[in-house]
Amino acid sequence: MQALVYTDTQTLIYREEKNPKLVNGESIIKVSASGICGSDMHAYHGKDNRRIPPLILGHEISGTIDKGKEIGKKVVLNPLITCGSCDYCKSEREHLCSKRIILGMNRPTERQGGLAEYVSIPDKNIYELPENLNIKEAPIAEPCAVALHAVKLGEENLFKSINDSKALVIGAGAIGLLSGLILSKLKNCKDLTIIEPNDKRLKESLKYLDADGFKPNNKSLPSDSFDIVFDTVGLEVTRKQAINCVKPGGIIIHIGLTEPSGTFDFRKTTLQEITFIGTYCYTNKDFEKTLNILNKKEIGSLDWIEYRKLQDGSLAFKEIHNGSCAAPKIILLT
Amino acid sequence: MQALVYTDTQTLIYREEKNPKLVNGESIIKVSASGICGSDMHAYHGKDNRRIPPLILGHEISGTIDKGKEIGKKVVLNPLITCGSCDYCKSEREHLCSKRIILGMNRPTERQGGLAEYVSIPDKNIYELPENLNIKEAPIAEPCAVALHAVKLGEENLFKSINDSKALVIGAGAIGLLSGLILSKLKNCKDLTIIEPNDKRLKESLKYLDADGFKPNNKSLPSDSFDIVFDTVGLEVTRKQAINCVKPGGIIIHIGLTEPSGTFDFRKTTLQEITFIGTYCYTNKDFEKTLNILNKKEIGSLDWIEYRKLQDGSLAFKEIHNGSCAAPKIILLT
Repeated sequence: MQALVYTDTQTLIYREEKNPKLVNGESIIKVSASGICGSDMHAYHGKDNRRIPPLILGHEISGTIDKGKEIGKKVVLNPLITCGSCDYCKSEREHLCSKRIILGMNRPTERQGGLAEYVSIPDKNIYELPENLNIKEAPIAEPCAVALHAVKLGEENLFKSINDSKALVIGAGAIGLLSGLILSKLKNCKDLTIIEPNDKRLKESLKYLDADGFKPNNKSLPSDSFDIVFDTVGLEVTRKQAINCVKPGGIIIHIGLTEPSGTFDFRKTTLQEITFIGTYCYTNKDFEKTLNILNKKEIGSLDWIEYRKLQDGSLAFKEIHNGSCAAPKIILLT
Repeated sequence: MQALVYTDTQTLIYREEKNPKLVNGESIIKVSASGICGSDMHAYHGKDNRRIPPLILGHEISGTIDKGKEIGKKVVLNPLITCGSCDYCKSEREHLCSKRIILGMNRPTERQGGLAEYVSIPDKNIYELPENLNIKEAPIAEPCAVALHAVKLGEENLFKSINDSKALVIGAGAIGLLSGLILSKLKNCKDLTIIEPNDKRLKESLKYLDADGFKPNNKSLPSDSFDIVFDTVGLEVTRKQAINCVKPGGIIIHIGLTEPSGTFDFRKTTLQEITFIGTYCYTNKDFEKTLNILNKKEIGSLDWIEYRKLQDGSLAFKEIHNGSCAAPKIILLT
């Protein structure tokens, strides 16, 4: 098969690779569409110790079953593969399973990703494509489930109702925009602000999102003023902005992983009783709910997604890298 | 009146001071007993910008009403003075009131503390001494309310019941021991560990607490093994130990304020979905519940408290400073 292979830091080559083999309990999917995630970009920059070249990246995937039990069925993949038998898996917190692996990673275990013609996946991770969801758009289910899970954690911990809360989203990438759309369109949050340093991307997100939009250094961002802050970037500087902007007794939801450590203001965290919640992926239920949300078009138009051909994927990575791409999400079509 | 005055870094002088004046809505308390808190020690080390010398420290106070409406009544003081009219005060989160002040602080507003013969306090902050609580022991109500509030935040955020959780308490000072006693005796937590570098203090705490006790570098503290961790110290190194020891999906409750900032592992926080909760003081309800708990002797013997005379207070601060004192709490008697 043809695949876009991550061969070295900032290097992707579209080349011939071996087809995945069918094993018991799994299916082979002919990939239709596969999204580029921020974590793929992290790998591309040589900064992800779970993704070591050579590797086929990509875990936001839709396609058609090519080999397996239900050949021809159009599907969306939940790329998070878990053991199914540990305490976490049994208590609907599969995303915390110690044996979890994700498509498009090779540490600690190898699972080739979706930026290819074919990919293999356990049958239990395969979901039928909802009838009103375009197969091209369907990879967005994965980051949308991440955002839904993050908003759920915020909602569970907020002292007041989320529709009555003042919310700040840091970053207008896919997770930022999707978190904003869920807050605004699903949770009826009426006081929403999004901040993003890239002018093009900020402008693009505001076409779809009913929110105030600013660059991060804008003076309209007073201290101690937001009930909940979603840091979808995860830099030391964005965490600094999050803890500065959050109200006493408020919540920070931390989704991004750009800088894995750094200093933080634990004094305010303690004296103002801030709850800081790390969030990763989604539960199986979150993924199912997301497909339902997308099927009902509850987060509105997905026209903010850009599409490219898989063979042009290397250029797409370059554009995301140098900030010349306004779209919060690029999906590659095979 | 005589008072123990904090006059300079690591300097306390027992000397004559002006008596507090009675103002409308307040009472003057003749102090019986006043505890030394970790935050007083923080001030003593010149590291608290809310407590600038000269100042009478102390906010853990019992006594008798000397001037005011109910002269002669034996009382315990809630030292957290709040506005009573803001959103936080109206929603039973008085401890987050932006106008809050605590006895024994002078920034942003001055309120002389309880390490003196007399102290003034608003009537609404005065609670009747419970009948089964010795007036000498009663100042422990304040740190006990801090610990009760911290355990409550943990309980609200844990995915499973606290009595079924594996808990770690970092630090065997008063807040550490009280958190442990509440977890063990009130919440029936059966798998409790406490760690403390000071041998004497660790040994003393284990006389009263049904827990495993270790020094922080002990090998019986594996990574990823506690559902909930209480960091009652708040150093960079204790936060590092907390994030290392907590299980995926677990909770860190951060009570201490020894080092206000520092680096932290946000990668594990995110990938393992850790909830990090800063906690400060207590609500009025927490304080009332604490008095009830102490009245019913629900956390057992308070014989771990040591008592000294107020005029010998300077020496008590020195002993706490140099680690020669095993007791988790020293209360000064006037």
